[in-house]
Amino acid sequence: MAKQAPPDRARLSDTSNPMLTLNSPYLVFLGSTTNALDAKTGRGLVDWRPGLCVGQSRLPGCTVDLGLPDMSPAEAAAAGAGSLVVGIALTGGAIDKSWLAVFEQAIDAGLDIVSGMHTRLASIDSLRTRAEAAGTRLVDVRVPPTDISVGTGRKRSGQRLLTVGTDCCVGKKYSALAIHAELEKRGIAATFRASGQTGILIAGEGIPIDAVISDFVSGAAEKLSPDNDAAHWDVIEGQGSLFHPAYAAVTLGLLHGSQPDALVLCHDAARTHIDEYPLYPIPPLDQCLESYLAAARLTNPNVKFVGVCMNTSGLTKTEREDLFAATSEQLNLPVVDPVKTGVAAIVERIILERE
Amino acid sequence: MAKQAPPDRARLSDTSNPMLTLNSPYLVFLGSTTNALDAKTGRGLVDWRPGLCVGQSRLPGCTVDLGLPDMSPAEAAAAGAGSLVVGIALTGGAIDKSWLAVFEQAIDAGLDIVSGMHTRLASIDSLRTRAEAAGTRLVDVRVPPTDISVGTGRKRSGQRLLTVGTDCCVGKKYSALAIHAELEKRGIAATFRASGQTGILIAGEGIPIDAVISDFVSGAAEKLSPDNDAAHWDVIEGQGSLFHPAYAAVTLGLLHGSQPDALVLCHDAARTHIDEYPLYPIPPLDQCLESYLAAARLTNPNVKFVGVCMNTSGLTKTEREDLFAATSEQLNLPVVDPVKTGVAAIVERIILERE
Repeated sequence: MAKQAPPDRARLSDTSNPMLTLNSPYLVFLGSTTNALDAKTGRGLVDWRPGLCVGQSRLPGCTVDLGLPDMSPAEAAAAGAGSLVVGIALTGGAIDKSWLAVFEQAIDAGLDIVSGMHTRLASIDSLRTRAEAAGTRLVDVRVPPTDISVGTGRKRSGQRLLTVGTDCCVGKKYSALAIHAELEKRGIAATFRASGQTGILIAGEGIPIDAVISDFVSGAAEKLSPDNDAAHWDVIEGQGSLFHPAYAAVTLGLLHGSQPDALVLCHDAARTHIDEYPLYPIPPLDQCLESYLAAARLTNPNVKFVGVCMNTSGLTKTEREDLFAATSEQLNLPVVDPVKTGVAAIVERIILERE
Repeated sequence: MAKQAPPDRARLSDTSNPMLTLNSPYLVFLGSTTNALDAKTGRGLVDWRPGLCVGQSRLPGCTVDLGLPDMSPAEAAAAGAGSLVVGIALTGGAIDKSWLAVFEQAIDAGLDIVSGMHTRLASIDSLRTRAEAAGTRLVDVRVPPTDISVGTGRKRSGQRLLTVGTDCCVGKKYSALAIHAELEKRGIAATFRASGQTGILIAGEGIPIDAVISDFVSGAAEKLSPDNDAAHWDVIEGQGSLFHPAYAAVTLGLLHGSQPDALVLCHDAARTHIDEYPLYPIPPLDQCLESYLAAARLTNPNVKFVGVCMNTSGLTKTEREDLFAATSEQLNLPVVDPVKTGVAAIVERIILERE
């Protein structure tokens, strides 16, 4: 267990918070994906920064459509694009060889390449040499800052909300962005804090928590939401799930370092098991709340849930209303679908809890 | 969340499992430490591999004594030493500038430098160039393997015991080594699995869990204790504590990936709060057991505690016997001090549970 980020992390962190200097607008690259979940990075950009997305680049076989005009890198450059942004986040975290031809065309067209994959763009020699020659940049969003210390456990000033999940890809980022927007709409000072590559692209800053060395995860989370005005809300994007056999450690470190005053549980109403882990059922929601509260109380004994965000895209309006009524009564919490109903009910609960 | 170890980890992993090629015996370097806890690496080597330790190297002001003859690097080399091993693990995880003169003397004397610190020896230019010139090696033990994937959650064959703690530095490594030795003494097939730098120096292999990128922690733990014969025991060195505001994420990832059948709780009878975190009290032991079981059941619903290992160095024999009797009755578990009483009672419980 150690106090300072090791030098290798430091060397890799020269491009931390690249969004602060990203060249927009973006050509969103979707590869040949046929899985909408894999395109969540591109979808998040289109949902939250539509003005920054000029087009999409898709390889043969790609069935995902973000509703943007299809463009070649050259066409995007002609339309004013500054960067090709990798809009897919494969479970692999690796860059597929079939993508490189388009990346090279983008470099030749003068575009930067922006990626949130684990694989570093600069680690691909053909891209690095080509970009150096063309004078364009290879920007890896998934790079932690240089100056992360281990967690202190010290209570920080200001209010914090963290979205937590029953699984990965259940709307933790979307819910946090929606709650942040609703708070601002009501004139409540708030900041969205991004903990993943898509959120960082949207927010322009943040820390890619799952790329931080495990010894420093809670310290990174503490750094992500620093001391603030007593009434200010940091709305923190959650990661993973306490019930995920691979990623619960990331979830717990983010939970402990965030010291949330308020938690929002995110769930996909159609999900019965951890995605891609059929032997791992998602616990009943009341058990999920108890597990998260028990873990969160270590660093904030006053933590409370203020709502549940559900993805009900597969349900009819009646099915959704029945499910929300039953769940809300069982858990004594507002239950919403950020896409279908908005998150006003959760923000009203937050305001109520503060009075 | 990603599937493959990113290339930067791979590049840093060229010296993984360095013990397999370490040059022994060792000159154990203690710097100028005055805190015996900081010297746990050197102490562990002397306790478990005395035959490999020819001497100790101490700077002015060092008050810790491992009972080895004090030697200069040149004297150690003359006595046959092959490596200077950094025997202190500062909370800092960094290499102190005041150590470099001795490291340079060691290199000049033909010794390898072996370190488990977060700071990479090779990142210090003066050492790297000197070692290259002298033809000696800079071996960083704290380097994860190249081929770590994310956790699968797949149940593996064989038996697994994990030592878990109420805090850091409460004897998790020592207890695991003692239980492993006791199992072998009784002819039970067992392997000690090291998860920290000291354990790796002792075992000759292992994975430095706290240096693994958080996305891969449980996957690394799965790799550390692979499928084995049904009756074989992997005795896995625990890390951190679920009750530690900085390191609980490391603890949880190791717990989930280890899928332990048996847990042993390690505790320092004199410890009331997390070391260096006075605002974080250690929960009552029965609550500690429940918290660990609740977390461990995610990947192994049949997990059980088989004993408690306590550091009672501050107690009289009578005080210890009274404490053990009361604790054993309360928890219905064997309670031992691995140093004072040995761990036979825990191994007997393990055998009983299997019958």
